[in-house]
Amino acid sequence: MFISEALGVNEAGHLTIGGADALALAEQYGTPLYVMDEEVLRTNMRNFKASMDSYYNGNGLVLFASKAFMCKEAARIAAEEGLGLDVVSGGELYTALQAGFPAERIYFHGNNKTLRELNEALDAAVGHIVVDNLTELETLDRLVCERAEKAGTAGIESKNFVPGRDCRILLRLKPGIDAHTHDFVRTGQIDSKFGFAIETGEAMEAVEAAVKAAYLFLDGFHCHIGSQIFDVEPFTLAAEVLAGFMAQVKGRFGKEIDTLNLGGGFGIQYDKQDDALPYAEFMKAVSGTMRSIFEEHGLPMPYVLIEPGRSIPGPAGVTLYTVGAVKTIPNIRTYVTVDGGMGDNPRYILYGAKYMALKASDPLAEATQTVTIAGRYCESGDLIQEFTKLQPVVPGDILAIPATGAYNYSMASNYNRVPRPPVVMVKEGQSRVIVRGESYEDILRNDV
Amino acid sequence: MFISEALGVNEAGHLTIGGADALALAEQYGTPLYVMDEEVLRTNMRNFKASMDSYYNGNGLVLFASKAFMCKEAARIAAEEGLGLDVVSGGELYTALQAGFPAERIYFHGNNKTLRELNEALDAAVGHIVVDNLTELETLDRLVCERAEKAGTAGIESKNFVPGRDCRILLRLKPGIDAHTHDFVRTGQIDSKFGFAIETGEAMEAVEAAVKAAYLFLDGFHCHIGSQIFDVEPFTLAAEVLAGFMAQVKGRFGKEIDTLNLGGGFGIQYDKQDDALPYAEFMKAVSGTMRSIFEEHGLPMPYVLIEPGRSIPGPAGVTLYTVGAVKTIPNIRTYVTVDGGMGDNPRYILYGAKYMALKASDPLAEATQTVTIAGRYCESGDLIQEFTKLQPVVPGDILAIPATGAYNYSMASNYNRVPRPPVVMVKEGQSRVIVRGESYEDILRNDV
Repeated sequence: MFISEALGVNEAGHLTIGGADALALAEQYGTPLYVMDEEVLRTNMRNFKASMDSYYNGNGLVLFASKAFMCKEAARIAAEEGLGLDVVSGGELYTALQAGFPAERIYFHGNNKTLRELNEALDAAVGHIVVDNLTELETLDRLVCERAEKAGTAGIESKNFVPGRDCRILLRLKPGIDAHTHDFVRTGQIDSKFGFAIETGEAMEAVEAAVKAAYLFLDGFHCHIGSQIFDVEPFTLAAEVLAGFMAQVKGRFGKEIDTLNLGGGFGIQYDKQDDALPYAEFMKAVSGTMRSIFEEHGLPMPYVLIEPGRSIPGPAGVTLYTVGAVKTIPNIRTYVTVDGGMGDNPRYILYGAKYMALKASDPLAEATQTVTIAGRYCESGDLIQEFTKLQPVVPGDILAIPATGAYNYSMASNYNRVPRPPVVMVKEGQSRVIVRGESYEDILRNDV
Repeated sequence: MFISEALGVNEAGHLTIGGADALALAEQYGTPLYVMDEEVLRTNMRNFKASMDSYYNGNGLVLFASKAFMCKEAARIAAEEGLGLDVVSGGELYTALQAGFPAERIYFHGNNKTLRELNEALDAAVGHIVVDNLTELETLDRLVCERAEKAGTAGIESKNFVPGRDCRILLRLKPGIDAHTHDFVRTGQIDSKFGFAIETGEAMEAVEAAVKAAYLFLDGFHCHIGSQIFDVEPFTLAAEVLAGFMAQVKGRFGKEIDTLNLGGGFGIQYDKQDDALPYAEFMKAVSGTMRSIFEEHGLPMPYVLIEPGRSIPGPAGVTLYTVGAVKTIPNIRTYVTVDGGMGDNPRYILYGAKYMALKASDPLAEATQTVTIAGRYCESGDLIQEFTKLQPVVPGDILAIPATGAYNYSMASNYNRVPRPPVVMVKEGQSRVIVRGESYEDILRNDV
């Protein structure tokens, strides 16, 4: 009925999120309000994990992407569900550690990790650092070496990983696949700030440097070909390119690479026109192709990492707003103004992202109006969606925007000095705050 | 020599900001770092104020736009310089009040002020509320009425302002002027979420409602025709439309409107291709036209408000970054990666904003390289500028991006859970922190 499993309708005819009445949530916590459905969040994690078990015999790990949605509770849930974690900054790492996330299941990404961050990752003994460039490779090797010298473990020659001393790494590669998706989020092509290009020889150079680096242990490769991808083919293409490269590496350095991180980018449904891939079928198709590709190259199946990104938290989230003025400009359009906007959801102004809206008090009513949902921020481009169908609304009505669980809270700002809304987790109709809403004092805390 | 008055070069050949060595600032406070030149900030305020004195006989007020750059110190400086303040939220109002900004010089804007915010504005007795729509007009009149009833001051009939009871308002009007500027920031046209359109009759309806509202006192009109405008003409056009409308209002309601807020939108120089207007000449031209227009309509010159927006803090700000990896992709481009990006400056990914970059250790060297300056955020679109000229740089070099004093700190986010940088104010070579940089603890403060 609705685009998200999180949504339902109760006896009063109101929209429910995780079984809780959306109007009651708005009343209790105020608006704007980020609501997450715990069941949907956990189910998405379990489904990815289950298909990893089914199609890769459990020989792999599903990584939760902190950048899509991170807070202590998100890290706790990902840990409980047995997922790994992809962090891209010291702040994300710190959050994970504070939540007790096991460091060995953490992968530290980023195209420009600072010295401080590399040291924090080493202090925490994260499972893997995903190295982006040669400057970073050299810096990291030097930092690990300095630590080994201090600890008196330097100098031991070993082709194998020396526990407690060496640092396990992946290399971020650009396989050169164009996943035919949005320009802003296209990252697998050669013209990208991320990683080493295979076709220019840069990737092989990086492998050589990694193999030579005394204190770094090259476990595998990572690639990320884009976001909001709705086809299987780009992923199988990428797997093919990577397998070929792994065979070359084996031939040249005698080194069998045993981990392959295929990144994420699976599309999710933002409105009714999107047609999300059923993940299980998708995993089945990709794993089947991988098996035959690796067999062809005479390589064992690698340990497979996937980073489903937005597809785990995205569908679990719904944002609630209160309607302010409704402004009809004759022959032009009707603006329905809400009490949030680009501060809590910058995705429309950034990417022209698609969203649909529902009137929470009567979500099954016919959406007879075509409206533009405008935010409260002092900027003309501050819109949630333009020319979208909506039930007739009046000031005071509650609007629900589904599929806002990824890249909404995480990209939120204090533009116009508006406090960021709380995040509430709902489970079986019961709600609890997992991120408190900001106060004016929070905003002024660092003002001198 | 440089595009900003804030910049200079010292004996060591290093870039200076407000007389302070940029390398020393980076060393002392770390990077990324927002630096503001107090002299430039105050001079810009004074110049606008002086031209208001010269061309409007001091019969007007320059409003500082909080949304461009706000913190307690910014409010204190604006207060000291005798400016008024334009706030668009409860958070901006709270900041101003905490800094001791005089409430009577505050104008409360916004297309969707919440009930809480309207009450906060009334509690603070701000000078004027700029009413955006009829829903707000009715709500505001009701709130003021309720307060009057409680205070026992309700019911006194008066055509004049009743101090301590009535609320002074402006109405936000759309004069329908297209200032030929960027789509995202075009706000004076009829298709806008802001204000009442004159040509549809909506504005006259609002005047009628305001005149009838028992507790609201209509002082004037506000219009904002856009941002980054480099011509005088759109402003004189807007003044003409507004004067005509004021004459109609006088004819119809016998009410002489005595305040006219022409908004802001004066262009500033982001790179060498922009050609900023000399403000004094600009004010002279507009005031001259206004005088003749108002005379023509048989109206006295109104009390004039202007909101120079980014042109006050914008040129005063410089952001410093440290260069990480430099990645050359043969035949495509060179990425120079810095330790900040869309989290501290989202203006390139949002608007494709133009910026130039300088190597802080040698800003006078020839800019022989064409590079793309990429941020550290995990997103392909996280760039500061593409294909821009730069001196040759290596990892560890400090880069300065001028003209980042407006809409950079104010739009900053914690995307990727990266702490927001500190803001440092420099005066005569001496620096002080005016906004402390965030810690990881700050980011986690509201996590449960």
